[in-house]
Amino acid sequence: MKVNVDGKAGDYRTVWMENGIVRLINQQSLPYKFEISDCKNVDETARAIKDMVVRGAPAIGATACYGMAQSVLHKVGIEKGSGILSASRPTAYDLFDAIEYFKKNYSYSKNVDAVKIADSYANESVERCKKIGFYGNSVITNNMRILTHCNAGALATVDYGTALAPIRSAHYSKKKIFVYVDETRPRLQGSMLTAWELSQEGIDHAIIVDNAAGYYMQKGLVDLVIVGADRIARNGDIANKIGTYEKAVVAKENNIPFYVAAPKSTIDLDCKSAKSIPIEERSKEEITHFRGIDAKGNLQSVRIPNETSSVSNPAFDTTPAKYVTGIITEKGIIRANESEILSIFNK
Amino acid sequence: MKVNVDGKAGDYRTVWMENGIVRLINQQSLPYKFEISDCKNVDETARAIKDMVVRGAPAIGATACYGMAQSVLHKVGIEKGSGILSASRPTAYDLFDAIEYFKKNYSYSKNVDAVKIADSYANESVERCKKIGFYGNSVITNNMRILTHCNAGALATVDYGTALAPIRSAHYSKKKIFVYVDETRPRLQGSMLTAWELSQEGIDHAIIVDNAAGYYMQKGLVDLVIVGADRIARNGDIANKIGTYEKAVVAKENNIPFYVAAPKSTIDLDCKSAKSIPIEERSKEEITHFRGIDAKGNLQSVRIPNETSSVSNPAFDTTPAKYVTGIITEKGIIRANESEILSIFNK
Repeated sequence: MKVNVDGKAGDYRTVWMENGIVRLINQQSLPYKFEISDCKNVDETARAIKDMVVRGAPAIGATACYGMAQSVLHKVGIEKGSGILSASRPTAYDLFDAIEYFKKNYSYSKNVDAVKIADSYANESVERCKKIGFYGNSVITNNMRILTHCNAGALATVDYGTALAPIRSAHYSKKKIFVYVDETRPRLQGSMLTAWELSQEGIDHAIIVDNAAGYYMQKGLVDLVIVGADRIARNGDIANKIGTYEKAVVAKENNIPFYVAAPKSTIDLDCKSAKSIPIEERSKEEITHFRGIDAKGNLQSVRIPNETSSVSNPAFDTTPAKYVTGIITEKGIIRANESEILSIFNK
Repeated sequence: MKVNVDGKAGDYRTVWMENGIVRLINQQSLPYKFEISDCKNVDETARAIKDMVVRGAPAIGATACYGMAQSVLHKVGIEKGSGILSASRPTAYDLFDAIEYFKKNYSYSKNVDAVKIADSYANESVERCKKIGFYGNSVITNNMRILTHCNAGALATVDYGTALAPIRSAHYSKKKIFVYVDETRPRLQGSMLTAWELSQEGIDHAIIVDNAAGYYMQKGLVDLVIVGADRIARNGDIANKIGTYEKAVVAKENNIPFYVAAPKSTIDLDCKSAKSIPIEERSKEEITHFRGIDAKGNLQSVRIPNETSSVSNPAFDTTPAKYVTGIITEKGIIRANESEILSIFNK
């Protein structure tokens, strides 16, 4: 992804490895400061995952794979290394996928370069995102105004992103586009990360409150909605950041195409429909407190409501397949139904 | 409204008059501190309106009417007084309505008590809200879970509120209810004011991010939606706080009744439909900055996104009449169409 550091344009991945050190864009410092966090060993890499220096399923996966390479380089052993990494964020599916990928490739031949395995994993992830961008670009025409929710960008993957891949692709192919960025309460990933990524790329955009998405759709100012997904069920139902369901319903009501961009690995064939997807309830503080920088440039946390009110904070919601126009995968764009989903798995 | 001050329960209006002083609940200090602001003369009363110590159309109206009484008491003159007050928030319709009310009643008889005119205006406003509460209570049954958006509470009126009047009424009549409070970005009136009011009354509630309203509706956990209105068109279209439209669309999709609570005075018979209602665009800072209290209890403002991103901030949206189950007025509940609206105007 493009990043301007001290006035100089650079090209960065979210995670990579140099001389045995895992290097990460520190997402805890964004958008206030661009800094690279260095993890010298598997323990530090696991801590970076745990502390959310890196977030987003594919980015966590690649980081874990590099952590596995460190276990080999530093002779920690792959069993011990995988134990340390598995404990960092035990609910992240991609973490285990990455560890399995590493183990499988490493055990086949003891002479293989551990770093190359991790690089392959990261490269394959980037290629998938590029393909999502390529296919997704086909539904974007010149002068389109696109709404996106949360951050399914380069920062959540290794590069390019999922929902942001078609947007990057359209921009690189010189289409004129405008992006409405839902700020995405409670954690404000739209306002903090997506808007930052689009700024770095020079893509026209405006941050809006989540409440305003419907207003722009009703006014005919949104031509297309693209979001990412945390999980896609076999029948095409999707689970994604809280608020996605509302956007999907209002998009349908206004005849606006609603696309979900995600790699095949996000599709869970064992999950029949959204009904069986558990929804995580997160901490009250995500709603009652805001973290930002004060007038002196220091990070500060401020409390908004009174202290006695209760708070409910579901992290995700589910959108039934009927609201989804199409799923943009690395295998092409498919409709959100079981037969088209199975077709990309050659089933 | 019930307010607990230092452990003692009191009963307050948003605005009242004592010994020539206009007293206001300072809404700039809520929910962190409950304090009464005193305005000794019409200039101070106008400044309180301008500085949003008081907000909400009916509350502003009553405050202005008390300000007119001060003009008489302090021999400023009603023409000069109305000039000072009119300039305080020139877009507030109720402000002019209140000034007209005062002038009309004052000119009829020079011997009438100026304070009594203002008290009558405030009392009539409270009576209208009580009636909205009475009629609205008829659609609330025991164990209902109600969603509300923004603050259409006692703080926005003189007492009781509009959307919160039926909720108060149901609570006073011993119905068990639960209220989902949309935090209502960008200004967070739900989180800061509605949640505070419900806490003071002891009504069960939870603050949720606006994005989560659809989630709870889809889950079958919301039985009823009640919101206020900034303006109602002759055909039943409504203009209200940004986000109202999304809630209305998602409520309809889930077959949840969607009610708008507002006095007759909110209906603008000269406005044919929502198409002719202008939508105010407000400052970028409402989205980029959050004001709350820090760990030391001091008010602080923090910035969230990067500084280069654009921001769009429409303050209101419009909800077509077809999404509105009914309008709860002081004359009863009517359907959102021209003939039922005209019927309460005896037309």
